[in-house]
Amino acid sequence: MIQGSNDVFEKVMDLAKRRGFIWPTSECYGAVAGFIDYGPLGAMMKRRVEDIWRDFYVIGEGYYEIECPTIAQESVFIASGHVKGFSDKMCQCPHCKEFLRADHVAEAGGVKNPSTMKNEELAAIIASCRCAACEEVLGTVEVFNFNLMFQTTIGPGSQRVGYLRPETAQGMFVDFSRLLRFYRDKLPFGAVQIGKAYRNEISPRQGMIRLREFTQAEAEIFVHPNEKNHHPSFRRYADYTMPLLTYVQQEKCEDAVSMSMQQAVDKGVIANEYLAYYVALTHHLLVTIGIKPERLRFRQHLPDERAHYATDCWDAEIRSERFGWVETVGLADRTDYDLNAHAKESGTAMTVFIQYDEPKKVARRRIIPNMSVLGKQYRTKAKAIFEALAIATPNTEGADVEVDGEKFHIPANLFEVRDEIVDIRGEEVVPHVIEPSYGIDRMCYAVLEQAYDEDVADGEARTVMRFSPRVAPIQVAVFPLMTRDELDTIAHEIARSLQKAGILAEYDDSGAIGRRYRRQDEIGTPFAITVDYDTKEDQTVTIRDRDSMKQVRIAIDKVPSTVCALVNGSLKFASLES
Amino acid sequence: MIQGSNDVFEKVMDLAKRRGFIWPTSECYGAVAGFIDYGPLGAMMKRRVEDIWRDFYVIGEGYYEIECPTIAQESVFIASGHVKGFSDKMCQCPHCKEFLRADHVAEAGGVKNPSTMKNEELAAIIASCRCAACEEVLGTVEVFNFNLMFQTTIGPGSQRVGYLRPETAQGMFVDFSRLLRFYRDKLPFGAVQIGKAYRNEISPRQGMIRLREFTQAEAEIFVHPNEKNHHPSFRRYADYTMPLLTYVQQEKCEDAVSMSMQQAVDKGVIANEYLAYYVALTHHLLVTIGIKPERLRFRQHLPDERAHYATDCWDAEIRSERFGWVETVGLADRTDYDLNAHAKESGTAMTVFIQYDEPKKVARRRIIPNMSVLGKQYRTKAKAIFEALAIATPNTEGADVEVDGEKFHIPANLFEVRDEIVDIRGEEVVPHVIEPSYGIDRMCYAVLEQAYDEDVADGEARTVMRFSPRVAPIQVAVFPLMTRDELDTIAHEIARSLQKAGILAEYDDSGAIGRRYRRQDEIGTPFAITVDYDTKEDQTVTIRDRDSMKQVRIAIDKVPSTVCALVNGSLKFASLES
Repeated sequence: MIQGSNDVFEKVMDLAKRRGFIWPTSECYGAVAGFIDYGPLGAMMKRRVEDIWRDFYVIGEGYYEIECPTIAQESVFIASGHVKGFSDKMCQCPHCKEFLRADHVAEAGGVKNPSTMKNEELAAIIASCRCAACEEVLGTVEVFNFNLMFQTTIGPGSQRVGYLRPETAQGMFVDFSRLLRFYRDKLPFGAVQIGKAYRNEISPRQGMIRLREFTQAEAEIFVHPNEKNHHPSFRRYADYTMPLLTYVQQEKCEDAVSMSMQQAVDKGVIANEYLAYYVALTHHLLVTIGIKPERLRFRQHLPDERAHYATDCWDAEIRSERFGWVETVGLADRTDYDLNAHAKESGTAMTVFIQYDEPKKVARRRIIPNMSVLGKQYRTKAKAIFEALAIATPNTEGADVEVDGEKFHIPANLFEVRDEIVDIRGEEVVPHVIEPSYGIDRMCYAVLEQAYDEDVADGEARTVMRFSPRVAPIQVAVFPLMTRDELDTIAHEIARSLQKAGILAEYDDSGAIGRRYRRQDEIGTPFAITVDYDTKEDQTVTIRDRDSMKQVRIAIDKVPSTVCALVNGSLKFASLES
Repeated sequence: MIQGSNDVFEKVMDLAKRRGFIWPTSECYGAVAGFIDYGPLGAMMKRRVEDIWRDFYVIGEGYYEIECPTIAQESVFIASGHVKGFSDKMCQCPHCKEFLRADHVAEAGGVKNPSTMKNEELAAIIASCRCAACEEVLGTVEVFNFNLMFQTTIGPGSQRVGYLRPETAQGMFVDFSRLLRFYRDKLPFGAVQIGKAYRNEISPRQGMIRLREFTQAEAEIFVHPNEKNHHPSFRRYADYTMPLLTYVQQEKCEDAVSMSMQQAVDKGVIANEYLAYYVALTHHLLVTIGIKPERLRFRQHLPDERAHYATDCWDAEIRSERFGWVETVGLADRTDYDLNAHAKESGTAMTVFIQYDEPKKVARRRIIPNMSVLGKQYRTKAKAIFEALAIATPNTEGADVEVDGEKFHIPANLFEVRDEIVDIRGEEVVPHVIEPSYGIDRMCYAVLEQAYDEDVADGEARTVMRFSPRVAPIQVAVFPLMTRDELDTIAHEIARSLQKAGILAEYDDSGAIGRRYRRQDEIGTPFAITVDYDTKEDQTVTIRDRDSMKQVRIAIDKVPSTVCALVNGSLKFASLES
């Protein structure tokens, strides 16, 4: 077994390029940093990861997927705060003209928390630091904010500014009213999106970890603010136990503590049931795609790291040999921040009318003016005074009101004060939002890195991608031992029967059988069927397990159902052996 | 049955908005033309259409899907011709300042073929035409080219121009060398992409038909130029018969003629087997998603309509009540145009080495200089003269060569001419490309429009979306007759068993049963299961067919397999009735 060494990254990316998982984008023109192509096997694997995500969120949770454009108009991002605040601090090296992240320069120079500094302050500090590119001392530089959104214009004549979305989330917020009606005006409900998002990174240098164009899978779950501690299926994960690295432990430099979600909520470690439920579901989902639990941790944001509006925030981090702990999923209780921001910017109400179980009796004081006297006395101003009076706070003498800057004292005999009990049927509520946000490309990179292994097979070194059968791009290989005596015809028929069952099968008849196994091991195909001379005698074939390299014989007509069951996990290979 | 009237469009779009198929994008900020949101049901339906496409191209044809970024660098589109040529002719109304398509203004004014005119010519002609917006006579206007690509910059300091791709195709061309290696250096092979593409339309006003951001599904099939008449599976569609509207018939204003693909190829109506195969496959695919054959035609491009490099081109057009015949799929033989263009721009060879079955014996004349004499005589120039000599055409006197602009006569005694027979193992070939290109949004619109129907059920008008079960967003509804006596518990269990079988089931217990049926009819749910009091007696439920409104009883434990079979089409509802 390979023990993660520092060059696993090189080995994985070399294999990924060579075998068609990940390619540099438009390589023949000189690849641009921050973009990748998913080749035939990579795209297939990515789609399987996305489909597992859908299994959890769309089928399991019942949150429908929507699809909004990747370009959106400026108002959306004014409301969301991205136009003003979505930027990195940048400077340009006066010597080599390279653009640099000013906070990264400062960090490399040993400065702590540079991202919280003001631009002038940061410029003063980095003057004595060296440029990462040419290694000269920077000297006097200007630090400025660089907005990370890709900008474009919609329509001719630069009519309208548009941005490529920096996250898929805003689409769900902007469509809130439509979604609310779709879900028949009831909370809680959720909507999800899987799609492209864009960040115009200053100088991305981390392969699939920091991309300028990437795929997000986000869920926005709209909940009554008072119901965040009542997830309807919480029981499912109440006993799910996993290590949590709370902010308290981080401050004390302590290790993560294992506890169940019930304990985490009871002790106030995680803010509420909703958040705890999705922390556990995320752990479950990541393990399902093939992430090893020992290389996965959940880290709570420190109070000064958290967005000001979020009440609690957890990151799922996956340990990479090259990149350390990589933030891969963010889980936040965003409260009513987003809906309030869009309601304000768009002038549209973004509330849900929550009917009380029983109408509430509420005491209300009503002021009823004597309109005929009021009209005579104040003439053209009477209407405005009448309106001002309705919301005034009178005393026994009368009431003081102001109309158009002019003050009036209205004597008590010109109106009547009536105390009433009224029925209130319900109230308008701004829902809170729980947001699990997944970086699909980082998940795919982690799957590749953790699947990579080297061992010895038949006395020969082999490279093997130990993908979970659910994410392996090719699910089964079909080999005829020889391309004669009808063995190839039978193998082709088996491949077709697998395709009909919705299984991606690869037929291969070229080269020695051992070389064909090695080829499939290297792309992580979990199972291989071989048609040999016994097949013609007894209608059986061998099925080989990639990891144990064991082979058993099964009947041809059982091949599709057996492979389906092995791939979806309802059958283990070991149980075939007995 | 509703007979397509002009306002089917209004009715369909109203239903689509109301029930969550299609929403205007960021409506609360004032929707921008040319963008739409797919709501929960629309996104689900679109995904089903895309999955059917994948069934045909990825599973059926074995062409792997890849995923390239939507942003690409400028060189890609310089090579493809989009930077120079992907533009519309535009003018601005001097009165109301509205931007207009100059060719549309001319067409509205009765001018024929304005798109082939030069800008000055067009400007002169439209001077007497009226503005479509303010209806003033335009007068003197400038006609200019407006590039339809969305432009942006990659990285800080406007370092690099980038464009949002106007088609997914270029990704497959640029990745040609990687794809060739993936397919083990053998022709034919194909690669496909389903993804976003962008065109910054001047004033899009046709709903889902003309979008600025849209989804394409494209296949690029790389074929040996001499093998275009040998599709390995041609037999599958050889007898597939359908109406073809050739360019000859269009010129004579004749109707389309029905013929088989074999006939079309034999008569030279379609250029080759490959193109004919994908014309037929496209017809098959469109009918599978629910397009009525009588509203589908295949129209050949007229010689002056076709791109100069394409040898043959067919459009699948779908008739819309509102928009007439809408081009939905384009099928072209693009020859070696794209690969040559990228090879030239990038300086990378984009060829396949095709080994001959037998090495070819080829006569070759070789010139062998006498280096020792040559060296003495020409000293420092000897090497260059030697190289020039190797490719010279000598006569009996000697050979004339040119080195650095200087001419030399090399006498015949300084070299030997040897005639040889050499073995040539094969040759480098630039493959031709067959490209089927599908507009997914237009397909989705056609599915919606053609599914819309109104009829009478139980003496009451009903609206029903007659989706094919394979594209219906919700595949089955599950109703308890009452929410008591455990009927709801049983119904919930049935819904869960359907979900486990991968079926999207909607549980609904609110309102009278008739109203629940109507609600599902309106969103096109093909089947509904009802749990009633008999269920508790005999463990059966009713299953109702949306179109015939007939109901039959089936055993609870048969529900998942029956619904699966009904949805994938392997079982017809009528056969349940007997």
